[in-house]
Amino acid sequence: MQMSHRISAFQCSPIRRLSPYARDAVKRGIKVYHLNIGQPDIKTPVQVIEAVHQYSETIIAYGNSEGRQELREALPGYYAKYGLDVKAEDILITTGGSEALQFAFMTLCDPYDEVIIPEPYYTNVSSFAHSAMVDLVPITSNMEDGFALPDISEFEKKITRKTGAILLCSPNNPTGHVYTKDEMLQLLNLCKKHDIFLIVDEVYREFCYDGKQFTSVLAFPEFSDRVICVDSFSKRYSMCGSRIGALISRNKDVLDNALKLAQARLCPPDIEQVAACAALKTDDSYLFEVRNEYERRRNFIVDGLQKIDGVKCSMPKGAFYMVAELPVDNAEKFAMFLLKDFNLNGETVMVAPCEDFYVTKGVGRRQVRIAYVLNTHDLERAVACIDAGLKAYRKEVMGEKL
Amino acid sequence: MQMSHRISAFQCSPIRRLSPYARDAVKRGIKVYHLNIGQPDIKTPVQVIEAVHQYSETIIAYGNSEGRQELREALPGYYAKYGLDVKAEDILITTGGSEALQFAFMTLCDPYDEVIIPEPYYTNVSSFAHSAMVDLVPITSNMEDGFALPDISEFEKKITRKTGAILLCSPNNPTGHVYTKDEMLQLLNLCKKHDIFLIVDEVYREFCYDGKQFTSVLAFPEFSDRVICVDSFSKRYSMCGSRIGALISRNKDVLDNALKLAQARLCPPDIEQVAACAALKTDDSYLFEVRNEYERRRNFIVDGLQKIDGVKCSMPKGAFYMVAELPVDNAEKFAMFLLKDFNLNGETVMVAPCEDFYVTKGVGRRQVRIAYVLNTHDLERAVACIDAGLKAYRKEVMGEKL
Ligand SMILES: Cc1ncc(COP(=O)(O)O)c(C=O)c1O
Ligand SMILES: Cc1ncc(COP(=O)(O)O)c(C=O)c1O
Repeated sequence: MQMSHRISAFQCSPIRRLSPYARDAVKRGIKVYHLNIGQPDIKTPVQVIEAVHQYSETIIAYGNSEGRQELREALPGYYAKYGLDVKAEDILITTGGSEALQFAFMTLCDPYDEVIIPEPYYTNVSSFAHSAMVDLVPITSNMEDGFALPDISEFEKKITRKTGAILLCSPNNPTGHVYTKDEMLQLLNLCKKHDIFLIVDEVYREFCYDGKQFTSVLAFPEFSDRVICVDSFSKRYSMCGSRIGALISRNKDVLDNALKLAQARLCPPDIEQVAACAALKTDDSYLFEVRNEYERRRNFIVDGLQKIDGVKCSMPKGAFYMVAELPVDNAEKFAMFLLKDFNLNGETVMVAPCEDFYVTKGVGRRQVRIAYVLNTHDLERAVACIDAGLKAYRKEVMGEKL
Repeated sequence: MQMSHRISAFQCSPIRRLSPYARDAVKRGIKVYHLNIGQPDIKTPVQVIEAVHQYSETIIAYGNSEGRQELREALPGYYAKYGLDVKAEDILITTGGSEALQFAFMTLCDPYDEVIIPEPYYTNVSSFAHSAMVDLVPITSNMEDGFALPDISEFEKKITRKTGAILLCSPNNPTGHVYTKDEMLQLLNLCKKHDIFLIVDEVYREFCYDGKQFTSVLAFPEFSDRVICVDSFSKRYSMCGSRIGALISRNKDVLDNALKLAQARLCPPDIEQVAACAALKTDDSYLFEVRNEYERRRNFIVDGLQKIDGVKCSMPKGAFYMVAELPVDNAEKFAMFLLKDFNLNGETVMVAPCEDFYVTKGVGRRQVRIAYVLNTHDLERAVACIDAGLKAYRKEVMGEKL
């Protein structure tokens, strides 16, 4: 029987499609270091777990489609710490930042409309675009300048009558770039000039390194009308499995229309929203320490990778990902080799091939994304595996004489 | 700024759009009996809440996109009680039955494809269809025969090259009809003849009255290839806020392709899945008692409504909804009147106008859907409000001389 063309054309999540090989490796008794997926090993704040343990309802009932009122009312206090003026009524609680991205596409775009996005980008966005029948129009960012915003003229060239929005992720998954105030202003002015929206995915807001300040798209009230911010509790409080996110906009039409989608799916999970309320009471020192831990890991892994012959990478400034260019013909083949045909003293590593993080065909074929979500001890082992794996692959598969 | 045409054409959930008036009534000190929404007042099984209190993870991490393995492995035991042979690998855990419906549309249909559906139907389906750009093709079912399956020839007439599936809900929301084995067979044979799918939403499976047996679409292994079953923990265990459902199919292509959508949104909520595992251990007596309680309520409300002058309804056989035809010009105006301009000793009632439960324009204008989710004491008060409200409306608004 025939599946839809739409779903048939869907790519399997590249981050997850190597998983069967990883499972096989584990079955063969091999330890796999997972650098392929953004699942932190950081503990969820204890008061979040405690709130779950103290969940006091006797009926787990449908809640408001826009989210628990207490959660919507608590969030402005969180944003205020960043000097951002967000009101409860600007917030729609979503089932993960994932759902907020989907709502944004559906609210702003009709089928065959276009959304401009710097590539490489968070791959699941392409599934959301595809579901909504929206075309992603890529602008390639480059390792040479740390994946900074490509020249604004590149964006302007791509704007057509079908453009609904520009979509940014800052701090960026997968590149680690943190967009500067100046970059944001350039984009906002361009959006204003062409009367389109700017959607910014800020789910990694807390993860900015080297003492750099983060600039939120919500910090520009004069552009409020054309701004959507995607947010999430997942990474911030290491509670990815709770599926609580938010769509934020001061444009009432956006909220009102996104609410229609929210009403159709009824409400976000209730217990997890109670957990999210507790998360907001987390002491700032938690976020501070987590940030420092990731900064340490970043320094560690960049240092380790740069020592490997032929590996190129730039210094990520935020989030907990980086893109590395490897001295191989095909990074996906290499990633599979690591899982299927390689081990170093019974250990190996799983990385995400980058090709699918690009719309443009062929770009990124030699790149992998690395999520530095493991402690430095494990990262050290993982880097050793990459080093030895590269040597083995270049010799055995590429036939190089090293 | 312009929203998408797609979202602009979305109807607001008719079940929820009267809510502001209900809130205003409450502010004026009026007690509102909610018969408008399927939120049971039944307590969630205690061991579900206990499982939440004992949630043992220290990191609420992303889980498998297809759902927690222990949950997928426990579910076949539940289906076995119905004599249904379902395997763990036939099950995709979803964020509510709502998400399973969305996945089914996306997996089977391309934009402008058609899904045939008996009307009146669960209204949120139209939002899911609309999001996926799928056209719903209605076949009107009628109160006179208890909203039974319309003649199968009506369905056949509507099948075109664009038809992707027929969508059924059994036991039915809003009509309460429980499709018989014979009706299911007629539909399955038709689907086979025309090589299309049958999707059956069975989230009210437990709620069948008068000692009648429920016939699941999963009971026909010879048609497994073209069957999708939508399921949910929401109503069964009165845990609607937990957002755990399932898409079930023995067609591997369906599961594999729906999994692509599941991977993009990462995973269902984790704590709630643990709660769902506990729910499966609920003693059958819980479901039995809940079923009996709803049967009592049904008998009570049908009896009460039939005594009201001019009200027509059929006896629902399952779920916890019924459609009533009222002696008014416009049921939505009447529903609003009840909230805005009426009270009986400081009380009133909220019902869902039925017009939007139909695709066909004008049908159902005098109908309301009533969810008998309150205890009989409250239902008695609610019926009294409807009775007095009808008299007042007919006199004051319609100018009848009663
Ligand atoms: C950039 C980005 N946006 C959104 C998400 C979605 O996260 P969630 O749905 O868990 O909030 C992720 C998850 O990895 C991400 O990396
Ligand atoms: C017929 C039907 N299907 C599906 C759903 C969705 O329920 P949930 O998403 O809570 O599983 C509902 C909820 O009312 C329903 O009535």
